[in-house]
Amino acid sequence: MFKAIVSASTLQDALDSVSVLVDECKIHLNEEELAIRAVDPANVGMVDLSLEAAAFESYEADGGVIGVNLARLQDIAGMANSGDLIHLELDEETRKLHIEIDGLSYTLALIDPDSIRQEPDIPELDLPAEIVLEGAQIDRGITAADMVSDHIRLRIDEAAEAFSIEAEGDTDDVDLNLERDDLIDLTAGPADSLFSLDYLKDMNKAIPKDAEVIVELGEEFPVKLHYSFAEGMGNVTFMLAPRIQSE
Amino acid sequence: MFKAIVSASTLQDALDSVSVLVDECKIHLNEEELAIRAVDPANVGMVDLSLEAAAFESYEADGGVIGVNLARLQDIAGMANSGDLIHLELDEETRKLHIEIDGLSYTLALIDPDSIRQEPDIPELDLPAEIVLEGAQIDRGITAADMVSDHIRLRIDEAAEAFSIEAEGDTDDVDLNLERDDLIDLTAGPADSLFSLDYLKDMNKAIPKDAEVIVELGEEFPVKLHYSFAEGMGNVTFMLAPRIQSE
Amino acid sequence: MFKAIVSASTLQDALDSVSVLVDECKIHLNEEELAIRAVDPANVGMVDLSLEAAAFESYEADGGVIGVNLARLQDIAGMANSGDLIHLELDEETRKLHIEIDGLSYTLALIDPDSIRQEPDIPELDLPAEIVLEGAQIDRGITAADMVSDHIRLRIDEAAEAFSIEAEGDTDDVDLNLERDDLIDLTAGPADSLFSLDYLKDMNKAIPKDAEVIVELGEEFPVKLHYSFAEGMGNVTFMLAPRIQSE
Repeated sequence: MFKAIVSASTLQDALDSVSVLVDECKIHLNEEELAIRAVDPANVGMVDLSLEAAAFESYEADGGVIGVNLARLQDIAGMANSGDLIHLELDEETRKLHIEIDGLSYTLALIDPDSIRQEPDIPELDLPAEIVLEGAQIDRGITAADMVSDHIRLRIDEAAEAFSIEAEGDTDDVDLNLERDDLIDLTAGPADSLFSLDYLKDMNKAIPKDAEVIVELGEEFPVKLHYSFAEGMGNVTFMLAPRIQSE
Repeated sequence: MFKAIVSASTLQDALDSVSVLVDECKIHLNEEELAIRAVDPANVGMVDLSLEAAAFESYEADGGVIGVNLARLQDIAGMANSGDLIHLELDEETRKLHIEIDGLSYTLALIDPDSIRQEPDIPELDLPAEIVLEGAQIDRGITAADMVSDHIRLRIDEAAEAFSIEAEGDTDDVDLNLERDDLIDLTAGPADSLFSLDYLKDMNKAIPKDAEVIVELGEEFPVKLHYSFAEGMGNVTFMLAPRIQSE
Repeated sequence: MFKAIVSASTLQDALDSVSVLVDECKIHLNEEELAIRAVDPANVGMVDLSLEAAAFESYEADGGVIGVNLARLQDIAGMANSGDLIHLELDEETRKLHIEIDGLSYTLALIDPDSIRQEPDIPELDLPAEIVLEGAQIDRGITAADMVSDHIRLRIDEAAEAFSIEAEGDTDDVDLNLERDDLIDLTAGPADSLFSLDYLKDMNKAIPKDAEVIVELGEEFPVKLHYSFAEGMGNVTFMLAPRIQSE
């Protein structure tokens, strides 16, 4: 049993954060929240999304799981104007999701959840450094890094109390240095890890430029990026495995 | 003999309605109006356009016929700014059309009208249902239908006094249901026909989103779409043959 | 020794004028100005650019020469917002250019100037006609000409005191006729030359639409186009060799 009404922009933000990593996913229709966890086919990037019942205009669910084609669902949500409400209702019998947007009805065939890649366990990590900054700053660092390399280094300079986004190319180098004053907050600690730029570029697409992003970082450890949307009632965590630093 | 001055936007609207179906057409330069009829190569979609002499800043013609390459003429009209006037003059001797836009002269070689596909007879049909709605509503139905299928069903629900734009895909379905209150006007009657989406998508491109469109519909009959432009002095009728409904 | 601060838009305008002709160039870091001269691989189009020290927020140089990849430098300058200042500093030892934009550091490997095509001598020509017009007018003539041909004729009608941009296609012709009143200034004289449209299209991309452009023209002679940017402190001259007129 699932029946909900949600603003188009909230649904779109939720779908965007998952679709950058996978094409299909399971959606958990829990009583208190809608939840998605997914990992990309190479097991490098993970996403954990939750959208509280309070983020919906109305929400009724009893713990079912559905499998969806994300691109298809995004296309449908894209038919809505920004102020529109989207009505969702699961037909348990036919296993189809009925979607209605201002007179337009869409019947979406669901995917057997068992046919979808297993959901990852997103590990609890006690990472020593935490950086809080704007989505736009991450975007700037990633765009610059992409000019010279296909990997990116995230690093804390503990002495200078600064966070660096660095990329080293064959001939050219890039370094976006953000000091404490440039950041919303900084908990310095030993942190220096290398990541695949492709994954961070994908995650960056989903992060709103004006979002406050919490980055948790360690030494040759995965990075975690957290941000919220829907006025704090939607939460996303991305986790990305590090690459081995070759020196 | 043909000599006329017309606003760029009026000429562009006129050309757009024909170019969605054919690449070349005959233009009748009648005394009272400029007129074009054309049918696509598969004989499925037709257009009938008329633009009254009063829609022009000035208009002199004596009944000749010219053949034109529409894409070429659209490119030239596209050189004009929206407020510009376009001067047209036929050189009978060289069979070229002289076009002038604010100091820019373009000499367009015409096509022998006899080499252009014959103009269709657009049949008088006494169709039982008539729907009047906004171009934007047609656009919404067609965009949604295109997500699931390559054909589209237009249907009147006489009991509910509603007009439906429907598409049935392999797995997903779409239905835009417009009740009397959602429409500008409705004359209900037995009407239910299936059409190729490709043709309707092309026609939809030409229909201004804010135009009032009259749709005439029957049971497994062609559909007719009428709209006007140039403050009512230009009129377009599209006619599209139905597809056989397989059940 | 080279150290300078310049607004992003000034640097971008300077780079654009050169990059339409060549991929790499030598930059002369003279005491009084930054200067570039370049010729395309076919020796048909040349550019001469100077940017006075006064166009910079600060400028220190002692006459060195560096070789740069223009696309790379444009990408970096493109990271700046329109109001941003770009800091440039040459590291003589490593032969790298350090570029800094609001916390973002980019280290650009330079190219050995000796490996770059030799700089052209741009001949002094005493051309009999001079036309002064807006960049937007040149753009209009080139766009129209491009619809019918791959070459373009620039011509003065001395009797009518008019400047014509003409193109003759296989079937269609274009003529943008600009009389004295349409132009900012005109020094009429015997002038009629044919040019490759591809080169003029490239040069046109760099010319700001609102720039005052001085065109010097003769009979089967190269054309020179001059314009300034950065409030007159940047100057560009394009020179384009004529094509032989076949009649």
